[in-house]
Amino acid sequence: MKILIIGAAGMIGRKLAERISADGGLGETAVDEMVLVDVIQPEVPAGRISNVRTQALDISVPGASKPLVAERPDVIFHLAAIVSGEAELDFEKGYSINLDGTRDLFEAIRLEHGASGYKPRVVFASSIAVFGAPFPKAIPDEFFQTPLTSYGTQKAIGELLLSDYTRRGFFDGIGLRLPTICIRPGKPNKAASGFFSNILREPIAGQEAVLPVADSVRHFFASPRAAIGFFLHAATMDLSKVGPRRNISLPGLSATVGDEIAALGRIVGEKAVKLIRREPDPMIIRIVDGWAPDIEGKRARELGFTVESSFDEIIRAHLDDEMGGQARV
Amino acid sequence: MKILIIGAAGMIGRKLAERISADGGLGETAVDEMVLVDVIQPEVPAGRISNVRTQALDISVPGASKPLVAERPDVIFHLAAIVSGEAELDFEKGYSINLDGTRDLFEAIRLEHGASGYKPRVVFASSIAVFGAPFPKAIPDEFFQTPLTSYGTQKAIGELLLSDYTRRGFFDGIGLRLPTICIRPGKPNKAASGFFSNILREPIAGQEAVLPVADSVRHFFASPRAAIGFFLHAATMDLSKVGPRRNISLPGLSATVGDEIAALGRIVGEKAVKLIRREPDPMIIRIVDGWAPDIEGKRARELGFTVESSFDEIIRAHLDDEMGGQARV
Repeated sequence: MKILIIGAAGMIGRKLAERISADGGLGETAVDEMVLVDVIQPEVPAGRISNVRTQALDISVPGASKPLVAERPDVIFHLAAIVSGEAELDFEKGYSINLDGTRDLFEAIRLEHGASGYKPRVVFASSIAVFGAPFPKAIPDEFFQTPLTSYGTQKAIGELLLSDYTRRGFFDGIGLRLPTICIRPGKPNKAASGFFSNILREPIAGQEAVLPVADSVRHFFASPRAAIGFFLHAATMDLSKVGPRRNISLPGLSATVGDEIAALGRIVGEKAVKLIRREPDPMIIRIVDGWAPDIEGKRARELGFTVESSFDEIIRAHLDDEMGGQARV
Repeated sequence: MKILIIGAAGMIGRKLAERISADGGLGETAVDEMVLVDVIQPEVPAGRISNVRTQALDISVPGASKPLVAERPDVIFHLAAIVSGEAELDFEKGYSINLDGTRDLFEAIRLEHGASGYKPRVVFASSIAVFGAPFPKAIPDEFFQTPLTSYGTQKAIGELLLSDYTRRGFFDGIGLRLPTICIRPGKPNKAASGFFSNILREPIAGQEAVLPVADSVRHFFASPRAAIGFFLHAATMDLSKVGPRRNISLPGLSATVGDEIAALGRIVGEKAVKLIRREPDPMIIRIVDGWAPDIEGKRARELGFTVESSFDEIIRAHLDDEMGGQARV
């Protein structure tokens, strides 16, 4: 089996490539070739797949996806996107990459389908940004799409195209609306949602972290490990069960900031908790106030998607996957 | 005030141009110039606006909208589309006109906005085809968009773009999801929904009509006159009340085929009713079975959109607008 990952240098793409390479396959099927593409050249992951090719490619250049598709990969993971903040700052760049890049990929597949009957599985990274406030207590499976950002608009359009191209039989697609990923590895970033990760990751590494909102703020989460699990499940599950509604709101662990901190105390200790400095930030408070506190993810669970059920698990996954099992506080 | 109608040779576009020309204005504001565009050259309507220009133009040709926008019309009605059946038969043509044509128009406005601060009102004809079965008894205002046709997909994408371009301040947009129009003037057509109009229009003109479904079939309707009312209201209402959710599910008159026939008997007489021949068609029965029987249209009514409350009214509007007040049976 041959796999293509577009967006393989991002946090999820990199971990996905590492995991597939470590497993040497996807589900029961051995993977003998993997192509990793991103706007910067991705790294070749260590593992059991020897035939790995990496390539720097800007999918927003018209026709860029064509040679990738001409190699007829069996599964295509499409994770390439510019993020919410950047898509909001640069209107043209956001539409160029997130909409035109996606449509160009889908068109390349459609044309190859027409020429040869080629019909790959396409796993598309979408986002809860397709939804817009005001929200109910938990976003239900049948919630309407009224995005309030250009990024969310572009992802919602990608979802619509994915469904239509699937219905037409050009490929077999599934779109995944990811919850907020926590604990994001790496450096603190300035995304409004960054603090959810910062207040765990930094204290675990012995560093101070700033908490800009109240302990009572509730949101929903999946670990990077659970996110990789979502993509692997989407790539291997029986898609005939999904029906025409191809974009799935994934489940998340609904928890408050206070729940995060309590789990940090239990798993790592009070020394870590003391590294969290409370410094309310009115702008972040206002932004986060517009976010949904929970998502039902009922259909996704019925389809076999699973997520952590406590922040203890999320912290343990982070310790195992990023810290060699050990906090440094 | 200057008005541009794209799609001015279609049934709604033509009636809209006629009405604006007859009124000589839009709401309280005089219209001194009107540009009518369609893929075939629209007719100049009789009326009070002397400066009317008509033009044959294919909006799917890249850049086609640019000179229209460069003239800076105050209100743009965008009704151009290829219909559901044709978009399903010809994938590329559907996307080219319904998606690329729409986006190209919106882009032309965005660029003119950037150059000169131009900010017109854009009234976009969308469709209940943005929704997909299974349906509740009445489609609520907050129903999710899972279209089951390429046409519905293209309209849903147009809606998303309209909302985002409006949110960004490039224009002031409003999208209208029209109910099924009845009584459509003209010849019987082979659209699956054609019979809803045929069984009234043909008997009113003394002709036989075929009814392919049961009398108990329920659906929701607006007359052509009500549809023009929707567009005029959208062009003149206070859009600041609409908020970020710019695509409106319009109200319809929910009625059964039996209700249609009873009204025909009351308004025109039993001679007309006798011209309806029952000839069940399993394919049409199956298609219509997947349609929603009603739509709530609550938000639209609160925003001042109105529709007929009985088929008696719809038939009377048809007699006045198409038959000189008189049935020919």
